[in-house]
Amino acid sequence: MSLFDKFEKNAALLDQLSAAGKNPFTVVMEEVLGPTRAKIKGRETVLAGTHNYLGQTFEPRAIAAAKEALDHDGTGTTGSRVANGTFAGHTKLERDIADFLSMKNCVVFSTGYAANLGAIAGFVDRNEDVVLIDADCHACIYDGCQLSGAETVRFRHNDPESLDKRLSRLDPKYNGKLVCIEGMYSMYGDIAPVKEFVEVAHKHGAHLLVDEAHSFGVYGETGKGVSEAEGVMDKIDFYTGTFSKALASIGGFMASNHPEAEYIRFASNPYRFTASPSPSTIASAGAALANISENPAIREKLWENARRLHGAFVQFGLRLAAKPAPVISVLLPTREDAFDAWRFLLDQGVYVNMAIPPGTPGKESLLRLAVSSAHTNEDIDRLVAAYGALAEAFPSARVDGAA
Amino acid sequence: MSLFDKFEKNAALLDQLSAAGKNPFTVVMEEVLGPTRAKIKGRETVLAGTHNYLGQTFEPRAIAAAKEALDHDGTGTTGSRVANGTFAGHTKLERDIADFLSMKNCVVFSTGYAANLGAIAGFVDRNEDVVLIDADCHACIYDGCQLSGAETVRFRHNDPESLDKRLSRLDPKYNGKLVCIEGMYSMYGDIAPVKEFVEVAHKHGAHLLVDEAHSFGVYGETGKGVSEAEGVMDKIDFYTGTFSKALASIGGFMASNHPEAEYIRFASNPYRFTASPSPSTIASAGAALANISENPAIREKLWENARRLHGAFVQFGLRLAAKPAPVISVLLPTREDAFDAWRFLLDQGVYVNMAIPPGTPGKESLLRLAVSSAHTNEDIDRLVAAYGALAEAFPSARVDGAA
Repeated sequence: MSLFDKFEKNAALLDQLSAAGKNPFTVVMEEVLGPTRAKIKGRETVLAGTHNYLGQTFEPRAIAAAKEALDHDGTGTTGSRVANGTFAGHTKLERDIADFLSMKNCVVFSTGYAANLGAIAGFVDRNEDVVLIDADCHACIYDGCQLSGAETVRFRHNDPESLDKRLSRLDPKYNGKLVCIEGMYSMYGDIAPVKEFVEVAHKHGAHLLVDEAHSFGVYGETGKGVSEAEGVMDKIDFYTGTFSKALASIGGFMASNHPEAEYIRFASNPYRFTASPSPSTIASAGAALANISENPAIREKLWENARRLHGAFVQFGLRLAAKPAPVISVLLPTREDAFDAWRFLLDQGVYVNMAIPPGTPGKESLLRLAVSSAHTNEDIDRLVAAYGALAEAFPSARVDGAA
Repeated sequence: MSLFDKFEKNAALLDQLSAAGKNPFTVVMEEVLGPTRAKIKGRETVLAGTHNYLGQTFEPRAIAAAKEALDHDGTGTTGSRVANGTFAGHTKLERDIADFLSMKNCVVFSTGYAANLGAIAGFVDRNEDVVLIDADCHACIYDGCQLSGAETVRFRHNDPESLDKRLSRLDPKYNGKLVCIEGMYSMYGDIAPVKEFVEVAHKHGAHLLVDEAHSFGVYGETGKGVSEAEGVMDKIDFYTGTFSKALASIGGFMASNHPEAEYIRFASNPYRFTASPSPSTIASAGAALANISENPAIREKLWENARRLHGAFVQFGLRLAAKPAPVISVLLPTREDAFDAWRFLLDQGVYVNMAIPPGTPGKESLLRLAVSSAHTNEDIDRLVAAYGALAEAFPSARVDGAA
């Protein structure tokens, strides 16, 4: 009779995986050698399981900006945004993001997780409102629904018709309706039909929140995300994003054209009751934003790398989850295969992520590769070679070899 | 019919306060001038509403450590702790905190809010367990209960007998039981009878979590917190804390002597599904921890300042919420008085926090002063003068003047 009983089953599996050197969840980056290299288990490894899409982790102007903020503003704010934790840097970054997205306002949160958690829990009232979410949404969106306490309805992944049906059948008692989708889904690297979702949501008087955590800086002509690529930037109600992927810092934000969205600052616990982001992380996020805005070649390089890798994997006959994208996932039929394949790649000097059900959309396990613009030709060659060897060694990872 | 309807009532009040220059929730630190000084509304102001208890925001070794981490490890990890986001610095800080607290293990989270949110939601199962919380617990503990989805029972503030009754009457169906209290409560600056709570919780087979966010580094012979001051450091089950107060960075942690507590890493969404803390913030937290461990004089200075201010406020006849502590709150009978008194202090060149119901424990509003070891004698003189003027101008803030 203990709180720990629930851990027992997983504990045995995790200990066994660790003993066999196949536990993907306990990797330590012993020494970081650059945006795409680190020492893991004593060995220099190509990082392809980070979400450093635009390779900004060692961008000199971001590092310089962070150092300057340390000198001027100190190591931390020691307070929340609604108390003493709003510095000039926080309001400037909010302005810069709003300008970059051509949206009216922006609210910065302390993490990307907190941005979705706080936006949903802040906008949705447990007694009056309802949330509708894509079934494949990230855990932080599910957690935001749970924290809001409101009725939550799931619709089929990337299926505007399914949303339409759910909205049509809603009890008329609800006041506000919030629909949540993502731009690019991070498990498969597939993208949402945002334009159709806008139409369906607005037809029913619902607001649409698009989480572009993995697509900000990456999709669209100027990097505004999938919503830009779909031509509906001016139609979405709430745009959420993170600083810990394309901007290589930590924090998150919610941008909007609705002036009322600003009042979430006084209604959202994950905004009000947490320390505000440290000056140095705000500064590096801002510098990275300036850098990627001014240099579209960074985004182009990412896409060149993504297409090259995806093309090679198709040639190898690997079972891929989606079209070319900054996330390229190889599907495997069993959890055991996935653990073995993950370790196989690590032995080839390549680090990727591994995911197993229920963390994956279907019943399959997967190896997830996150492409970076900072991957050099040599990195790409090593990734291609490692995945070629994987296709040989793991027939179950191939289209022609799956059971 | 909109998500924004709920904001209307507060929006009117907030706009009115802002127009009158009396909105304490929208203050911007236009320029930070040091650990206890910033420019607000164009004017140099003494900061006494931060939680920079040990004045570490501009500690040279913390700034140097943060800069070194930027150079070596980059601006961000771009991944969660269970993926690519565990660097050598994260595991070292976990070891250092565990050693400082003389506890077996420690799990670092990305914010202090996330530490309580993630500890509670990670340990407590919605179907099998129950949480019991002190009625005055911080919002992040309430949010952790909501996120867990488990039955939550409140007991009377700082009342072990009330907890005893609640535990005695619990339905025997529950498996695990988690009791949550805080060391020092941040609204009044009052401290918990932790020793008695340990006895009551353990008598009923419950685990005890003590949130020492505001007391870590501050209470106890070596700064381990109220649990140390009460002589029960080895008896509490889970110890949570933050990096954004005494350590002047951002992040949080959960330490324990239970080896099973480590498995929360695989069970807690706020740990698994959020970017890990940036290397620079981890480095500055570690350096601040080393600094305050090696220099007990910093803590002694804080207490000297706290006693001096508290003594002066007693002399002025102000209605104080608690005994001398690093938080000194003056009670005011109405919200209007509190807004006016807050602005009055700002006009005296002093920034403090303001809180109104339902954010306060009782029906009263309050002005909260957070003392810092970095407050100079001149800062203290200015604070004393400003509160003296307050006592004159606001009879309702005095023991003899309250309605």
